Amino acid sequence: MRKILVLVFTFSFLSISLFAQKNEKVKDEDAFYIRKIYDAALTKGKCYEWLTHLTTRIGGRLSGSPQAAAAVEYTRQMLDTLGLDQVYLQPCMVPHWVRGDKEEVRIINSTSRGTINLNATALGNSVGTGKRGISAEVIEVKSLDEVDELGKANIEGKIVFYNRPMDPKQVRTFNAYGGAVDQRVYGPAKAAEYGAVGTLVRSITTRLDDVPHTGVTVYKDGVKQIPALAISTNDAELLSSLLEDEKVRIYMQSTCQKLADVVSHNVIGEIKGSESPEKIILIGGHLDSWDIGSGAHDDGAGCVHAMDVLQLLKRVGYQPKHTIRCVLFMNEENGLGGGKEYAKISNEKGEFHMAAIESDSGGFTPRGFSCDGDDAIFTEKFKQVIKWLPLLEPYGLGLSKGGSGADISPLKSQKGLLFGFRPDSQRYFDYHHTDIDNIDAVNKRELEMGAASITSLVYLIDKYGIK
Amino acid sequence: MRKILVLVFTFSFLSISLFAQKNEKVKDEDAFYIRKIYDAALTKGKCYEWLTHLTTRIGGRLSGSPQAAAAVEYTRQMLDTLGLDQVYLQPCMVPHWVRGDKEEVRIINSTSRGTINLNATALGNSVGTGKRGISAEVIEVKSLDEVDELGKANIEGKIVFYNRPMDPKQVRTFNAYGGAVDQRVYGPAKAAEYGAVGTLVRSITTRLDDVPHTGVTVYKDGVKQIPALAISTNDAELLSSLLEDEKVRIYMQSTCQKLADVVSHNVIGEIKGSESPEKIILIGGHLDSWDIGSGAHDDGAGCVHAMDVLQLLKRVGYQPKHTIRCVLFMNEENGLGGGKEYAKISNEKGEFHMAAIESDSGGFTPRGFSCDGDDAIFTEKFKQVIKWLPLLEPYGLGLSKGGSGADISPLKSQKGLLFGFRPDSQRYFDYHHTDIDNIDAVNKRELEMGAASITSLVYLIDKYGIK
Repeated sequence: MRKILVLVFTFSFLSISLFAQKNEKVKDEDAFYIRKIYDAALTKGKCYEWLTHLTTRIGGRLSGSPQAAAAVEYTRQMLDTLGLDQVYLQPCMVPHWVRGDKEEVRIINSTSRGTINLNATALGNSVGTGKRGISAEVIEVKSLDEVDELGKANIEGKIVFYNRPMDPKQVRTFNAYGGAVDQRVYGPAKAAEYGAVGTLVRSITTRLDDVPHTGVTVYKDGVKQIPALAISTNDAELLSSLLEDEKVRIYMQSTCQKLADVVSHNVIGEIKGSESPEKIILIGGHLDSWDIGSGAHDDGAGCVHAMDVLQLLKRVGYQPKHTIRCVLFMNEENGLGGGKEYAKISNEKGEFHMAAIESDSGGFTPRGFSCDGDDAIFTEKFKQVIKWLPLLEPYGLGLSKGGSGADISPLKSQKGLLFGFRPDSQRYFDYHHTDIDNIDAVNKRELEMGAASITSLVYLIDKYGIK
Repeated sequence: MRKILVLVFTFSFLSISLFAQKNEKVKDEDAFYIRKIYDAALTKGKCYEWLTHLTTRIGGRLSGSPQAAAAVEYTRQMLDTLGLDQVYLQPCMVPHWVRGDKEEVRIINSTSRGTINLNATALGNSVGTGKRGISAEVIEVKSLDEVDELGKANIEGKIVFYNRPMDPKQVRTFNAYGGAVDQRVYGPAKAAEYGAVGTLVRSITTRLDDVPHTGVTVYKDGVKQIPALAISTNDAELLSSLLEDEKVRIYMQSTCQKLADVVSHNVIGEIKGSESPEKIILIGGHLDSWDIGSGAHDDGAGCVHAMDVLQLLKRVGYQPKHTIRCVLFMNEENGLGGGKEYAKISNEKGEFHMAAIESDSGGFTPRGFSCDGDDAIFTEKFKQVIKWLPLLEPYGLGLSKGGSGADISPLKSQKGLLFGFRPDSQRYFDYHHTDIDNIDAVNKRELEMGAASITSLVYLIDKYGIK
């Protein structure tokens, strides 16, 4: 781009007052306040600094790990620097799964290629093979239904290899993820029903590369728990192509274990509301991550977004009418222990969450928010929110009906509105649940824009309320 | 993100037919055709493969370099595989500037720190210092106006250091670039007017890092040409902080040279229109790049976008009514030789470009198009285009008034509409004009979505025309 072009174009953001005029409900002062929030986020945001510490000094922080405990203490300390009305830890029970030694998966008898090592990672919650490992013939399937069709005669004694790719045609990658992830979550239990001895799952990603993606698998009561590992998409393609011509035997070894549940914590900080402190606006992310990589996008980004909302409100000198509460939930990845405990205690206290916003889709450029709520209240309340759209559009933000977030979804019964922060999704599954989900995959400005957009929504909810 | 969440939400794209109903001018068949284009781009797009070759096998391709010649031949060959009606090269004269040896810039006399090497790169078109280099005291300024104010008494014999950062508060980074780049383009000539012996410019980027950014500088007739180099933003901060306490001398050495102009080429491929072949819809990018790095985002991405438009139209079996012409312009970075020659010849032939679309803002997730045109026709023609918005919105695309592209801007006098493709801008200046603008900075899906969005606009322009 040469400067001539740049000096000429005025694309993208029409003047604030022009937008403000589009809707009588929207006031110039709101437009200016939101601009002030963005200015603060882009010049005095703390989220990138916090995320850098969380990912480079603490790292992967699976529930029950020492790193998860360090993350609880670090974020508590950081919230303590913000001059909030209250910062505290909320105990919750979480599972404690440990990966053990680096996994091994290899093709051991290819007539054309001999032994081939595959890039693999055990799925979360998986049992291990033990130190001696296991070996068996592989059978490839594209779906859980196919396992049902093949039945015990074809499955027993084998390693079942789930190899249905994410659909690249989905413009929003989360939809493609939703269409493929049943293989990882329920595939191993399904294969075990028919006597499989192990499971390999094609990594759930839109890319073709050598990076294996972990993630939770869920066993079924009364069915044998069998070892389950993911292999990279390149290796899945290789294995599939070999299977076209020959029978393939795989050796796999993993030493993961499930230990006894332990106590961990949600981390909570809040600014008390000046007029209606009993009405809560929650912003949150989940503090746990998988153990490989350092959970930069999933979900360090969401945590530092939520923390920065409080920092930014303080910095611009905004005194909220309602209580603004940042919650960093523990154990979203493999149990939802933190989210469930938070909702349980909140319900016991008779709290009301007027709104809850979760950021758990990465630290990419914001595209808007999806909004959810109990059927009885949703339509009426969403109408109030959609009126703010002209204030958000200049920043590239939309508002739509949709889901919110796993940690806040138990709050739906309180009949407030639930929001999911929705950044651009194209790159998310390049990094999701891998050892490359690190700070270098996060762009500082994109992360800061996320904090600004969530803070802006919190400002509007607080100022106008949702009745 | 756990699967529970993902399976639930239906965010982002409402159904095609719902959108189609929003505007009577918009037909279901268009919505389905655009969906078909996206499907093709996301499963059978060629742009990423081409860009990988262009950046990893050919590399940086500054006008006049052997690599630029290779890029001309490679893209010509690739266009030749598409079964077009015509593929040809259009000769144009271009400058031939060569960087010479790796530049050296160092602080030589810091009382506190001794000698400090700085990360530097010569600006394009800059003269060299010669092998012996130069050394002089540094004076920091924030603007060209400040140089005028300081005058000869303060500037003569010194190295002028321009150190005004890009404004981080601009949501669209191109606006911030536009507000800073005068230092690089005109700063050296301005400093020379008052007798400066050299110029250092803070790299024009939103990041704080060690990567220097090159780019064109323009000398002034009748004023001595002095060496001009960019230093990284981290080094600019360091130098500035040292200057607060002490006088700093810099040694700089560069051996760049301007050689005689040479012949190069625009690369052109086209599908002839079946009804009105005399009306042209142009899509283009620029094939030259800076010599450091490999010009992946600037502007390899734009070239492969333009090429993929033709590939995708062929693949979905669309027969255009108007002539669809892909033009890969040579020499956008330091002279615009290709763009000027193309317009000159087009005008001589009496051609009419009904529309021209340039992609020169990187290969990031598409956000839409800006639209420009001669005042006499713009309002009436833009009205026709804006009616297509409901078809583009489901893909996150907007349409706005604004600039287009440097290469196509000379076509404005033909009184068609000019469009600039506008992807997300947050990361662009991380890579712009650096040795890290490489294929690993490009996400395959983001690039493919760009090709899909431009192809969709071309489809609509072709089907409905712009009268």
